[in-house]
Amino acid sequence: MLSHDLQHKIDFKTKPLGALGSLEQLAHKIGMLQQTASPQLINPHMVVFAADHGIAKAGVSAYPQEVTYQMVMNFLGGGAAINVFCRQNGMKIKIVDAGVNFDFPPDLELIDKKVRKSSRNILEEAAMTTEEYQQALKNGKAVVEDIAATGCNVIGFGEMGIGNTSASSLMMSRLFAIPVADCVGRGTGLNDIQLQQKIDILTQTAEKHGQIDTPDEIAQTFGGLEIAQMIGAMEEAYRQKMLILVDGFIATTAIAVVWKKNPEILNSCIFCHVSDETAHLKMLEAMGQKALLNLGLRVGEGTGCALAYPMIQSAVNFLNEMSSFEDANISNKD
Amino acid sequence: MLSHDLQHKIDFKTKPLGALGSLEQLAHKIGMLQQTASPQLINPHMVVFAADHGIAKAGVSAYPQEVTYQMVMNFLGGGAAINVFCRQNGMKIKIVDAGVNFDFPPDLELIDKKVRKSSRNILEEAAMTTEEYQQALKNGKAVVEDIAATGCNVIGFGEMGIGNTSASSLMMSRLFAIPVADCVGRGTGLNDIQLQQKIDILTQTAEKHGQIDTPDEIAQTFGGLEIAQMIGAMEEAYRQKMLILVDGFIATTAIAVVWKKNPEILNSCIFCHVSDETAHLKMLEAMGQKALLNLGLRVGEGTGCALAYPMIQSAVNFLNEMSSFEDANISNKD
Repeated sequence: MLSHDLQHKIDFKTKPLGALGSLEQLAHKIGMLQQTASPQLINPHMVVFAADHGIAKAGVSAYPQEVTYQMVMNFLGGGAAINVFCRQNGMKIKIVDAGVNFDFPPDLELIDKKVRKSSRNILEEAAMTTEEYQQALKNGKAVVEDIAATGCNVIGFGEMGIGNTSASSLMMSRLFAIPVADCVGRGTGLNDIQLQQKIDILTQTAEKHGQIDTPDEIAQTFGGLEIAQMIGAMEEAYRQKMLILVDGFIATTAIAVVWKKNPEILNSCIFCHVSDETAHLKMLEAMGQKALLNLGLRVGEGTGCALAYPMIQSAVNFLNEMSSFEDANISNKD
Repeated sequence: MLSHDLQHKIDFKTKPLGALGSLEQLAHKIGMLQQTASPQLINPHMVVFAADHGIAKAGVSAYPQEVTYQMVMNFLGGGAAINVFCRQNGMKIKIVDAGVNFDFPPDLELIDKKVRKSSRNILEEAAMTTEEYQQALKNGKAVVEDIAATGCNVIGFGEMGIGNTSASSLMMSRLFAIPVADCVGRGTGLNDIQLQQKIDILTQTAEKHGQIDTPDEIAQTFGGLEIAQMIGAMEEAYRQKMLILVDGFIATTAIAVVWKKNPEILNSCIFCHVSDETAHLKMLEAMGQKALLNLGLRVGEGTGCALAYPMIQSAVNFLNEMSSFEDANISNKD
């Protein structure tokens, strides 16, 4: 009934039928999620989870591991891409230390949810023990609970972690039964030789861990502390009926874990962009999803969400503010 | 030299090389246009040109001709899609009567640049006489001169005119030597039978007018008063070194006329979106251009420009506000 009312409201706005394209689907989705034909986006937040990866030292990334903590300091100083875009578009930003390999000075505006310094090296063992993984889920959940308490109903998730495209590639390969080589990309800038090396290392790693069945075990074995916290955070955002903005390749592997357990999560999600990391498109297709933007981004941090946010706001605004044919006294199609 | 400085500034921001994708190209383009590595977008405007088309009564549109003036009233009342998006994104909106078939009451916030009521019926004669076409160019130029005087340096162009996809299809066919049938789309919502009827009518019309050589003669013969004013306006915006935001199919045919005379215009243009009107993509490709957004829009009015505007602002903001690796003390790629 609401679905029909929403579609009717969309169809009788002063524009040709369907002519606002993707924005019309967004408006319908947000209305359904909020169970109203007059939805509102309230107190939008971006949460960036940061953690280090034991595998980072194996030559799978173009950047050294210390870049993770350096970028956290950059986020806190307001100088990263995600800061610029959140500032512009009115999103509050929260930075979470999920497991960075660094002792941060106190008095920073950093949410301390560190489970341990860096996930374990997946060349040798699972990225997290069961206890560590469960703790990470809980920590992510707690972050979202605090944000939901502010009345926020739209939340984007970003990440920072040198080595985390490797973790995501391995997760994707298992979650979707796609060969590792088809799940691997250049991350933040590998050349051809480095890319082949990454594929070789990850293929060996995947073989080493043998059969793994559940989505949570896949995340625990191959993921990272920031990815695990994102999973816990996304599950909580779903429970809170928040609109979930999904960023790039890494955030999409996190949502894929949730989706394997609960396909309904997709009703709460907007896939904000398809990244230049080619495996990302494959994963979206495997879940039957289409991204809003295709700008060749591969920054992570949640930048795709922050850039897409004004367009999501536009979907809500046209639904609430545009005249109908009747209001405006305009002749409709013959 | 500036080109190199801009690229250096972009490359040393705290992000992987090239990782902001299309935004990096935008930032470079805007910097080059403004001849500075610290560009600014000032007093952004959207101008919507409206006019009627003699061909509208021939059954080429899904909507009756009176929708043109009704939508102008809707623009002035603030209830159309373009009003909603301009309000949201801080763009001033100006509505121009370029040739609407209606006597508007006085005291409206409408810029009166009416050359005549409706272009002539191209089934019978050229859309405009030479004098009418020249007057339309001048009127469009005058609109932009007034806006430039406010300090505005970024301007989007939209249109409203029942029948104007037909005019644009015929212009595109001649400008790019592409068969009429490949330039025709469903406009604001024709069904299969209506689409074939539109193709037949336009093919006959194209044949009737025989050989036409110059881009201006093509626009005069097949265009409309709003398209002609847009051409004059775009030429003036180029002279004023404004950043020109190009909307959908119809605005792109206008810029194509200018481009045929002066290919340099493209250095001033951002193609904001590729519309659901399939011929639009062909025309962009013919000019070697890629659009920023692909949202399946087919509203016109400049909506694609207004929706893309925050992203264009983001390109400028990252260039001006993001830290460099050096500022933020971050290890760059090995």
